[in-house]
Amino acid sequence: MVQKPAPDATRRSEKSRRAIYDAALALVVEAGYAKTTIEGIAARAGVGKQTIYRWWSSKADVLLEAFLDLSEQYAEAVATPEELQYGIPDTGDLAADLKYVLRATVDELVDPKFEAPSRALAAEGVVNEQFAVQVVSRLLEPSLQLYVQRLKAAQATGEVRRDIDPRIALELFVSPLAQRWLQRTGPITYEYSDALVDYALNGLAPR
Amino acid sequence: MVQKPAPDATRRSEKSRRAIYDAALALVVEAGYAKTTIEGIAARAGVGKQTIYRWWSSKADVLLEAFLDLSEQYAEAVATPEELQYGIPDTGDLAADLKYVLRATVDELVDPKFEAPSRALAAEGVVNEQFAVQVVSRLLEPSLQLYVQRLKAAQATGEVRRDIDPRIALELFVSPLAQRWLQRTGPITYEYSDALVDYALNGLAPR
Repeated sequence: MVQKPAPDATRRSEKSRRAIYDAALALVVEAGYAKTTIEGIAARAGVGKQTIYRWWSSKADVLLEAFLDLSEQYAEAVATPEELQYGIPDTGDLAADLKYVLRATVDELVDPKFEAPSRALAAEGVVNEQFAVQVVSRLLEPSLQLYVQRLKAAQATGEVRRDIDPRIALELFVSPLAQRWLQRTGPITYEYSDALVDYALNGLAPR
Repeated sequence: MVQKPAPDATRRSEKSRRAIYDAALALVVEAGYAKTTIEGIAARAGVGKQTIYRWWSSKADVLLEAFLDLSEQYAEAVATPEELQYGIPDTGDLAADLKYVLRATVDELVDPKFEAPSRALAAEGVVNEQFAVQVVSRLLEPSLQLYVQRLKAAQATGEVRRDIDPRIALELFVSPLAQRWLQRTGPITYEYSDALVDYALNGLAPR
C-alpha cells in the first residue's frame, strides 16, 4: 500500500517544485539554455541536486515542465473555467470564435512576463531537434489540436469545406502570428489577427 | 579621385572575404552565436582582426553578410537567370506561380548545407531583437516584398480581391512553412506547400 504523504510533506514538495520552476526559468532567461545546469537550478532554488533528479531526468524535462506550468498559470489568470475546460469556444460562429482565441494569443505573446522564458525555449528548439520534439508533443501540438477540433465541428455544420485537412488549415491563421513573434517580421495586434481569420476563411481570390 | 585596386589586390580581398564568411558560418554552427567572436573568425579564416574590422563593425554584420552570400549562392545554384532577376514568376496563373516558388523554398529548407547556419541565425534572432531587426530588413523583408509585388499584380488582373492587404495575405502560405521549419511542428513537403496555396486562395469556407 502506498502511503499518502503527510500534509506538511506535500506542502514542502509543492514549495520546492515551485522554487525549482522559478529558478529554471530565471536561469534560462539570464544565462541561456546551454549554460543552464541541474546544479545551477538546484543552487538557485535552494534544494539539493537529488531533489531535482527525484522528479526529472534532465534539464530539458525541468524547463519544459516549468514552462508548461507558466502557461497554465497564464491561462488560469486570463480564461474562464469553461474556456480552460473546453479550449476554443463554439458559439456557432467560427470567425468570431477564432478571432476571440487569437486575440487572447496576441495578449499572451506581447506579455513581458511570458516573453523572456518562451523566447529562450523557442530559440533552443530551433537548433535542438530533440528538445523541439518534446516541446511540440507536450506544448504546441496539444494546443493546435484544439483548433483541429473546432474546425472539425465547423466542417460538420458546413462552415468549413469538408475536403480540407483541418491540421493544415489552422496554420493559415496560427502560423502568421507565430512567425511575426519568432522572427519579428511585423507588429502583433488585434486588427492583424482579425484580418488573418477573415482572409483564411474567405480566401484571397474573389468570391 | 578614388584609385581602382589592382587586379591582384581585388583577388586577394575576394579570397579573404570568402574565407571570413566560411569561418563565420562554421563557427556559429559549431560553437553557437554567443561564443563566436571576431577574433575567432579571424583566426579560423587566417586573416588579421583588422582585416575584418576594415569591412564590418560587428560579428552580427559579418554573420548576416555571410548568410546573405550563402543565400545568393544557393539561389544561383537552383534558379534560372530570369528568376534571379525578377523574383517570383508571373505566368498569369497565380496558384501555379506560388506553388512553384514555395516548392523551391521547401527544397532550400530541407537542404542540410543550408540548415545549420540558417538555424543558428534564426535562433539568435528569437532572443536578440537588435539582430532580428537586421535580419528582417536585409534578408526576410526583401524576400517577402517579392510576394507583395506578385500579389499586387494578381489584384490588378482580378485573381486576388482588391480589398486585402498583400503584406498580410502572403503570410497565409509563407508563415506555415516558416513555423514548421522553426518549431518542427510538422513535415515540409511539396504536397503540403501546394495545399497552403490552394487553401489561401480559395479560403476554408465553402464557395
